Amino acid sequence: MINKLIDNIRKTGAPIVAGLDPMLKYVPEHLKVQAFEEYGETMKGAAEAVWLFNKEIVDNIYDLIPAVKPQIAMYEQFGIEGLVVYQRTVNYCKEKGLVVIGDVKRGDIGSTSEAYAIGHLGKVQVGSKVCKGFDEDFITVNPYLGSDGVKPFVKVCKEEKKGIFVLVKTSNPSSGEFQDRLIQEAADGNGTASRPLYEVVGEKVVEWGADCMGDSYSYVGAVVGATYPEQGKVLRKMMPKAFILVPGYGAQGGKGKDLVHFFNEDGLGAIINSSRGIIAAYMQEEYAKYGAEHFAEASRAAVIAMRDDIAGALEAK
Amino acid sequence: MINKLIDNIRKTGAPIVAGLDPMLKYVPEHLKVQAFEEYGETMKGAAEAVWLFNKEIVDNIYDLIPAVKPQIAMYEQFGIEGLVVYQRTVNYCKEKGLVVIGDVKRGDIGSTSEAYAIGHLGKVQVGSKVCKGFDEDFITVNPYLGSDGVKPFVKVCKEEKKGIFVLVKTSNPSSGEFQDRLIQEAADGNGTASRPLYEVVGEKVVEWGADCMGDSYSYVGAVVGATYPEQGKVLRKMMPKAFILVPGYGAQGGKGKDLVHFFNEDGLGAIINSSRGIIAAYMQEEYAKYGAEHFAEASRAAVIAMRDDIAGALEAK
Repeated sequence: MINKLIDNIRKTGAPIVAGLDPMLKYVPEHLKVQAFEEYGETMKGAAEAVWLFNKEIVDNIYDLIPAVKPQIAMYEQFGIEGLVVYQRTVNYCKEKGLVVIGDVKRGDIGSTSEAYAIGHLGKVQVGSKVCKGFDEDFITVNPYLGSDGVKPFVKVCKEEKKGIFVLVKTSNPSSGEFQDRLIQEAADGNGTASRPLYEVVGEKVVEWGADCMGDSYSYVGAVVGATYPEQGKVLRKMMPKAFILVPGYGAQGGKGKDLVHFFNEDGLGAIINSSRGIIAAYMQEEYAKYGAEHFAEASRAAVIAMRDDIAGALEAK
Repeated sequence: MINKLIDNIRKTGAPIVAGLDPMLKYVPEHLKVQAFEEYGETMKGAAEAVWLFNKEIVDNIYDLIPAVKPQIAMYEQFGIEGLVVYQRTVNYCKEKGLVVIGDVKRGDIGSTSEAYAIGHLGKVQVGSKVCKGFDEDFITVNPYLGSDGVKPFVKVCKEEKKGIFVLVKTSNPSSGEFQDRLIQEAADGNGTASRPLYEVVGEKVVEWGADCMGDSYSYVGAVVGATYPEQGKVLRKMMPKAFILVPGYGAQGGKGKDLVHFFNEDGLGAIINSSRGIIAAYMQEEYAKYGAEHFAEASRAAVIAMRDDIAGALEAK
C-alpha cells in the first residue's frame, strides 16, 4: 500500500491528503435540510448530512489527490450511525482509487492492539469464515504504550501489505508538553546527554519499520506536524525510510515553504494533510464566491492552490 | 459519577471492575453455535455471540460489583456490528445499575478530542435537537498529545458530571519504553534533577482534575498497572484525589497483596480491573468444574474470590 500511495502521488503530482473531518457546522444548510427531511434531526440525519457532504467533495477532488484521511472522531461523535458513514466513506474513497488513511490514533496493550489492528487493517476469523472490518489502507497509531502496543499493528501491516503512521510530534500547540521533554540518556564523558521524547519515539519508528519495506519506503511511517518545521527537519533525517504524514497545513498555520524539509531528496517521503482548508474552503473569504451551493467546487479550487503552493516550494528548494 | 462509583464500591464492598473484553475464543461453543445459526459466520454472528456471552456474565455478577469496563477494541474488531453490541452492552450494564467505564483510550488534538468527548460522554447538537452517542459514564484517555488533547474531555466531564481515567503507567511489559524514561528537569545546585515521564503525566492529572471534584475524589482519574506496584505507590501519593483504575490483576500477574498501596487510607481511591480472570474463568483449571455450559457461574465464583483476595489484603495492610 505504501507503493500505491507513492504511485498515486506521482500520478497526481500532489503529495496531498484531504482530511475528511466533517463537523456539522461545515456542512452547507441545503444538505442538512435534505438529510433532516429524510431522517429527522437525529444521529442518522446528522450522519446522512455528513455523507452527502463527503460524497460531493470526493466526487470533485478524487482525480487531483492520492489519498484521503477521514478522522474517525468526527464520525464517532454521531455514535453507530456516524460510524456507518465512516465505513461508507472509506469504501467509497477506495472505489474511487484513493488510498484511505484512517485517522484513528488507536493503541493499547498487545492483545488489544491486535484487535484494533485486525479490525482496521486486517481480517477477523469468525468460525470457518474470514471477515473484514473497517479495512482502511493505513491508520494512525499512538505509541504511548511502547513496542508491545505497536508491534501487533506492524504484524498485520506485513501480512496485508498495509501501513501505519505513528504519532511522533503532533501539530497541536501543547504537543510539546510531553513530546518535547528532554529524555536523559546515559551520561558520556562530557556530562549528561539528552534529547526530546519525539526523537526517542522517532528512533523506534525506524526500528519498527526496518523489517517491513515497500520498494523504497517502509510500511511504518510517522506523524509530524506542519506547525513544527524545525523538528520536522531533524526527524526527516532520523527516519529516512519513513513516510511522514504532515497535518497542520493551512488552518493550523503551516504553508508550502515551511514544509520542504519534510521531503527527501527524491521529492518523496511526505504527504501533507489539509482538512478544514479543503472541505470547508467555501467558508473562507478566498473561496466565498463559490457560495454554499458550490462548496465542493471551492474544495477543488483549494486543492489546486495547495498543490501548486507545495509544488512551487519544492521546486524552489 | 465518581460519587456513584464510590457509592457502588461501598455497597458491594468490592473495589472491582469486570473487564468485558470478549475475544471470540473465550465464548463457549454453544453460544457461538446459537449465534451463527441465527446470523451465519458473519460479523453480525460474531457480535451476537459476544452479546449472549456478555449478557449472561453480567446477569450473574452485576450484584457483586460496582462497575464494568468494556474494552472497545474487542468490539471494534467486528466492525459496525461489533460496535452495535458495544453500545448494547453499555446500555444494558447501566440499566443494571453498574457504572460503565468505556476503555477507549481516545485522545487527539483539541477539536478532535472534543468530538470524542461529546460522542462518548456528552451530547451532540443535531439541528435543534440534542442527541447522545455511546454515553458511557467514564472513559480512558491517552495523554500523549498534551493538555489541549485532554482538556476537552475534562470540560465535558464537568458539564455531565462524568469522568476520565488518563493513562499514566500502563500494565504491559514494554510500558516503560517511553513512560519510564527519565525527564530532565531544571538543574538545581547539585546537578541535573530528573524523574520518569509517568510522574510528569501524573502531575498533569492532578492539575487537570483539581477543578472538577466530586465529594472526595476528582472526576479525573488515572490508569496505573497492577504489574507496577512500586510505581503505583509513588503515584498514589502524588495524586491523592485521583481515583486509580488498576488493570493487570490476575492474568497479567498482579494479586491483592501487591495492590494495597494503590489505595488511600480511607480504603478508597483504587478500582482493580480483571478481564480474562473473570470472563474466561471457566477456562482456568481452578474453575473448570463449572464447564462451558455454566461459564457465567464460574465468572461469579472468580469475582467472589477476587473480592475476598483484595478485602483480605486491605485488612492486613
